[in-house]
Amino acid sequence: MTALEGKVDLSVRRADFPILATEANGHPLAYLDNAATSQKPQYVLDVLDKYWTGENANVHRGVHYLSQRATRHFDDSREKVRVLLNAASTKEVILTKGCTEGINLVATCLTGPSPYRLREGDEILVSTMEHHSNIVPWQLAAERVGASVNPIPITDAGEIDLDAYAHMLASGRVKVVGVVHISNSLGTINPVKEIARMAHEAGALVLVDGAQAGPHSLIDVLDLDADFYTLSCHKIYAPTGVGVLYGKQHLMEALPPYHGGGDMIRTVAFEGTTYADLPAKYEAGTPNVAGVIGLGAAIDYIASVGREAQGAEGGLRSNLAAAFGAIHEQEIGLARYATERLLEIPGLRITGTATEKAGIVSFVLARAHPHDIGTILDQEGIAIRAGHHCCMPLMKRLGVPATARASFAFYNTYEEADRLVEAVGKVHAMFE
Amino acid sequence: MTALEGKVDLSVRRADFPILATEANGHPLAYLDNAATSQKPQYVLDVLDKYWTGENANVHRGVHYLSQRATRHFDDSREKVRVLLNAASTKEVILTKGCTEGINLVATCLTGPSPYRLREGDEILVSTMEHHSNIVPWQLAAERVGASVNPIPITDAGEIDLDAYAHMLASGRVKVVGVVHISNSLGTINPVKEIARMAHEAGALVLVDGAQAGPHSLIDVLDLDADFYTLSCHKIYAPTGVGVLYGKQHLMEALPPYHGGGDMIRTVAFEGTTYADLPAKYEAGTPNVAGVIGLGAAIDYIASVGREAQGAEGGLRSNLAAAFGAIHEQEIGLARYATERLLEIPGLRITGTATEKAGIVSFVLARAHPHDIGTILDQEGIAIRAGHHCCMPLMKRLGVPATARASFAFYNTYEEADRLVEAVGKVHAMFE
Repeated sequence: MTALEGKVDLSVRRADFPILATEANGHPLAYLDNAATSQKPQYVLDVLDKYWTGENANVHRGVHYLSQRATRHFDDSREKVRVLLNAASTKEVILTKGCTEGINLVATCLTGPSPYRLREGDEILVSTMEHHSNIVPWQLAAERVGASVNPIPITDAGEIDLDAYAHMLASGRVKVVGVVHISNSLGTINPVKEIARMAHEAGALVLVDGAQAGPHSLIDVLDLDADFYTLSCHKIYAPTGVGVLYGKQHLMEALPPYHGGGDMIRTVAFEGTTYADLPAKYEAGTPNVAGVIGLGAAIDYIASVGREAQGAEGGLRSNLAAAFGAIHEQEIGLARYATERLLEIPGLRITGTATEKAGIVSFVLARAHPHDIGTILDQEGIAIRAGHHCCMPLMKRLGVPATARASFAFYNTYEEADRLVEAVGKVHAMFE
Repeated sequence: MTALEGKVDLSVRRADFPILATEANGHPLAYLDNAATSQKPQYVLDVLDKYWTGENANVHRGVHYLSQRATRHFDDSREKVRVLLNAASTKEVILTKGCTEGINLVATCLTGPSPYRLREGDEILVSTMEHHSNIVPWQLAAERVGASVNPIPITDAGEIDLDAYAHMLASGRVKVVGVVHISNSLGTINPVKEIARMAHEAGALVLVDGAQAGPHSLIDVLDLDADFYTLSCHKIYAPTGVGVLYGKQHLMEALPPYHGGGDMIRTVAFEGTTYADLPAKYEAGTPNVAGVIGLGAAIDYIASVGREAQGAEGGLRSNLAAAFGAIHEQEIGLARYATERLLEIPGLRITGTATEKAGIVSFVLARAHPHDIGTILDQEGIAIRAGHHCCMPLMKRLGVPATARASFAFYNTYEEADRLVEAVGKVHAMFE
């Protein structure tokens, strides 16, 4: 396989990311842990610095100069997220502290008073490949009301078994389906539009965990018809401490409040409190102002990649579409190349061989534990992740305690993929 | 009143804060909105930049170089917070997204299964001067279980009526008391140690909202004997998106989990999930890594102020004690000076005249609405806050719809206090 013939090689953009020029353990850093968190372009860091040194203020409550500037940029970020997701309204864009909080918010609010309240005997389906963050919140919610959380089986290739899913939906008791868009552990791209369609036909709501999809593909919540969609923004080149919960407006209006506090109220009195309209209703307290403004900058940065890729100025959505097209192509090119070369190592098995895969390559060696692989690669400056990837039920299904995982971003190079393969080859040789 | 004779004038440290050298509306910025959020010293910004360009990684899950560095600095920050609060163990230091989340966490968990579970007929007391963030979470919790939230009266000076409080405790049904350490609106420093002692005698738990106390005084949770204590770290010169919940170890161990997700589990299975030990039990999902590391830097910065103030190198706690001693003195000096001069303006009334007050001055004019005051001061580059300060029940008690509030930090100057007074004088003249 050859690299990117006739295409823009996006890895030239790695110069935008200062950390990628550093060393780790005396070697040039090869950062292949992008599914855990992404690195940040200088552009985002500059916007953060500009914020701290020229704009920092609390938002939405001040009439003064700084507060108005901060509020304007904060609100601009929400609009950019709306475009990123193709949501109908910024009322549907709830800013959270992370993907996990968004899922917990939905699961918790579904146990409170609303027409959608979960009740005893109700069933919640989640796939066997879910991250713990899309299992445990549902377990906690189910315990509260006497519902059950049931795993949708997956195939040996790491794809959701849609027949089994259809069969489970036929119970007539399924009220919620939680499913990951792109598996953090397998790389599988799930057919979430079809999964949502089937759930809706059975009268169930659907939450899609987009933690891994957000950084690597153009999301369209309207097309997917997801009821809830969550993002982990530190994986999208934005700062830590910010997430997004998309929720359909009529649902978020019907659900009860979550956190109580400043900004989420209309009036507070000891005789009774009334709540603010969306999205403020779900955003109690001072938000992560800098983080959210950094998220807006990250979206702008991605758009700039798209402008370059399509060689033309478009609107934000058009630029993002071009960016994610190029990003996806680059990342799956890297992952396929690494996969093919890794498979030449005797005893190496790829965990996750779905037809539709993102830039994530998980693998095990016959004789070396994944942690040993991770540690030895680290000595060569190659950052991968080893462990259960917060997917213990999936590990059980795969029959392994852990895997080693290389996860690519568009700024990675074929040279880095080669270094990965060679280092894993050395591990194999050491443990043979 | 003269300034700071024979003392270190901490406002020389304003040079550490780049934003304080900027202009607002053509005037030098006079930032007197510190109760809303504090500005950040260059030292904190440098640590953040170092993190983003040389350390950024997800924590607690990686064997690679970056992840280990990030994890070490992240964990160091928790230890610094432990010292800041004088907590017995880092197990008692839960990192949240903000003060509001900490209070919601406690209120929510007290409605779940534990020996401390709130039940129908139980009473929750909060003072009339609480921020909405220490009222609404309790109202939501009370609704869930059929408990009630009752306001502890305050005096005209803005102090908690301890006789009334004792009387309310005598009902024998009070299970929780929520009280603010320093009122964001009045500046009152509440006798929280005595309030906690009385609550404990009546068999109630106590949560102290330390949002305003954290930046301005040396907290000692052991001495206060608070069961729960919350901090808002963006007010303590740290980045946005970070808070702290201190909770006594035996309580946090007894309470049920809050958010489900990665890091807060020991094992996940569809047959049943087990939870991690403290503090991980309450920290599901990727934390605000940069924000937490920035918080550690902010604590180090405060300690450096203390080193300078005491003219000697001490341990972290000793440096923080010296710093907060000097900070408090500087801030109340500024506030008293501003108060005395403001009172010379006819028709100006100070709201909040407690004997023990922090560096917060709230006031109303007979003829000008607080929003007009805020807007006119903004034209002169003076940032204050005008509104209900998220304290609607307090505003009702004071008989005003809103107040204007100047809140001082140690980097403010007497010259800024003079500018405030002169500008308010102009507003008075305009509306006379």
